[in-house]
Amino acid sequence: MSKSYSIAVIPGDGIGREVVPAAQAVLDLCASRFGFSLEWEEFDWSCERYVKTGSMMPEDGLDRLRPADGIFLGAVGFPGVPDHVSLWGLLIPIRRAFDQYINLRPVKSLKGVPGALSSPFADKIDLCVVRENSEGEYSEIGGRINRGREDEAAIQQSVFTRQGCDRVMRYAFDLAERRSRRVASATKSNGIIHSMPFWDERFDAIANEYPEVETSRYHIDILTAHFVRHPEWFDVVVASNLFGDILSDLGPALVGSIGIAPGANINPERRHPSMFEPVHGSAPDIAGQGVANPIGQVWSGAMMLEHLGEPEAARCVEAAIEELLADPSAPRTRDLGGTAMLRDVTFALKSIISH
Amino acid sequence: MSKSYSIAVIPGDGIGREVVPAAQAVLDLCASRFGFSLEWEEFDWSCERYVKTGSMMPEDGLDRLRPADGIFLGAVGFPGVPDHVSLWGLLIPIRRAFDQYINLRPVKSLKGVPGALSSPFADKIDLCVVRENSEGEYSEIGGRINRGREDEAAIQQSVFTRQGCDRVMRYAFDLAERRSRRVASATKSNGIIHSMPFWDERFDAIANEYPEVETSRYHIDILTAHFVRHPEWFDVVVASNLFGDILSDLGPALVGSIGIAPGANINPERRHPSMFEPVHGSAPDIAGQGVANPIGQVWSGAMMLEHLGEPEAARCVEAAIEELLADPSAPRTRDLGGTAMLRDVTFALKSIISH
Ligand SMILES: CC(C)[C@H](C(=O)O)[C@@H](O)C(=O)O
Ligand SMILES: CC(C)[C@H](C(=O)O)[C@@H](O)C(=O)O
Repeated sequence: MSKSYSIAVIPGDGIGREVVPAAQAVLDLCASRFGFSLEWEEFDWSCERYVKTGSMMPEDGLDRLRPADGIFLGAVGFPGVPDHVSLWGLLIPIRRAFDQYINLRPVKSLKGVPGALSSPFADKIDLCVVRENSEGEYSEIGGRINRGREDEAAIQQSVFTRQGCDRVMRYAFDLAERRSRRVASATKSNGIIHSMPFWDERFDAIANEYPEVETSRYHIDILTAHFVRHPEWFDVVVASNLFGDILSDLGPALVGSIGIAPGANINPERRHPSMFEPVHGSAPDIAGQGVANPIGQVWSGAMMLEHLGEPEAARCVEAAIEELLADPSAPRTRDLGGTAMLRDVTFALKSIISH
Repeated sequence: MSKSYSIAVIPGDGIGREVVPAAQAVLDLCASRFGFSLEWEEFDWSCERYVKTGSMMPEDGLDRLRPADGIFLGAVGFPGVPDHVSLWGLLIPIRRAFDQYINLRPVKSLKGVPGALSSPFADKIDLCVVRENSEGEYSEIGGRINRGREDEAAIQQSVFTRQGCDRVMRYAFDLAERRSRRVASATKSNGIIHSMPFWDERFDAIANEYPEVETSRYHIDILTAHFVRHPEWFDVVVASNLFGDILSDLGPALVGSIGIAPGANINPERRHPSMFEPVHGSAPDIAGQGVANPIGQVWSGAMMLEHLGEPEAARCVEAAIEELLADPSAPRTRDLGGTAMLRDVTFALKSIISH
């Protein structure tokens, strides 16, 4: 009897519906090569569902995901449904209900993918953004006063807890011990006077537990500048929810296309399912045309295989991606300067894996 | 009798104390050429003062600045004094007391300044970040609970008012009418659910007043990616206090050195003095060595001349900067790949102006 993992699949909206099935096909093939199977259960939760029913997912949605070994998400968001409705109705509740407090987003220069920088180090970027994914700047606390009047105002509260900071920082330091033993913290303690000095304090406290790891600390403004001028300085970068969100789009833009950048929302204790989704969004402008790049979704799938305890299979998928991108004669989608369709890239990935 | 303007000068800390006198010399020379003078009144408000006296500026500090026609600031911040103490004790109170609600930061590719991007458009960047400078994410509202305990937490509140949003957006649209009639808004209404949807609403409302201006709207994460991949898309970019802070460091990093980027904190109604300070900070790592680049400070001085109503003098300073940078044989500081000292660059600027 072969091993099998149950995966909840939420293609979502826009190109999510195209890249997810493509990635499923690639992952299935790889699974069969490594002697396990993925049992996909699909959920049509999306903006389309919202428009029809008034909610992004059913009331028992979270309960239905709970038994899964992993959640495989495409992208959520579509014109006509305000983003804060669609995202706070699906993506963010999942991240929070399952305490996926780590958002892990590797940023790596890949052979064959033209980066954006002219620097001699541009092809030596290899860093990992560890983003706090459960609290911070993303909160429902706050609201609006005097709506529609001249004296209208909106209040938004950020909440940083010691537990929330400490656990993401420990994760970052643990990761650094397996990489180059360097952690940089993204802060803004010169401008944001309650949350960020607290973040710095916790960073110093956790750093003390890891005396062999080298640390640095940059305000987010200059940090984005350093990402551009000196990307080779960075190994693990730990950041709050918002700052991590920014850095994990900026990073991929430096090394190549947002269309290839993978991401994982992780509950490290494995008490709840983790969720794997690419960095890119639903890209309504190109949705339905078959031109989206499936690689970000496939690579996120590789992160899922790793998390499921199938590291060889994960390596196999990653190697296929690297081989494909490095081959100048292989098909590539528009975002990488090519003219290939999504299905061509998927087919090519599958051929590489089946050899 | 010749015209004269009274300028309050706050060199501040670190390289601020080196670049400010250099810039004063350049501006004085230019003023004499154009038949006016600058009467500088210097204030030693700084972290050093804080260490000695416990406060960054005297109690009547703001009153002493009030009569000035302009404020010329270097940089504030030094190791040993927590940044949130030094900045909230000097820089931010000045911005707020004088209702300098616009932070204007031009970002422009300059001939002779190597940019960071490999894109064919890399030398065609010409945009302006219009940053909200009086409210938003920068607030003293919030605090700490359970200090020193396991259940410790920090709360930080952002406050966005309709007046605050509307006035910075109108400024951005007015500016766009004098440039290429395009305004992009930096938002994050998919993640930050009270303040940023409100920001979007106000952007749409103000955009309606300017039907001839083309608008776009990007979440800050993907916007940083677009700055890197498609900087030529942007003309005027309007952003909240925090997002503007980030974009106005990222932008200069793309076109060259943070050391040349100028900035202005403006009270457009001229009811209060405006303040001119470069984007760079006090750079304690290189302070005192005479190697800092004075150009950011000098260029900020040009923005001050413009604001004082001396546009020809402002142009003259800017032209001198452009001429210097474009000349491969001219001295340049380390941050631009050269070995020249600050005094060499200052001398060269003065020679260009006196011809
Ligand atoms: C020093 C700091 C408080 C300041 C800011 O964030 O406003 C600086 O980064 C700037 O951009 O002027
Ligand atoms: C869609 C949005 C709410 C989300 C975020 O900001 O977390 C996205 O940008 C991401 O990075 O996963």
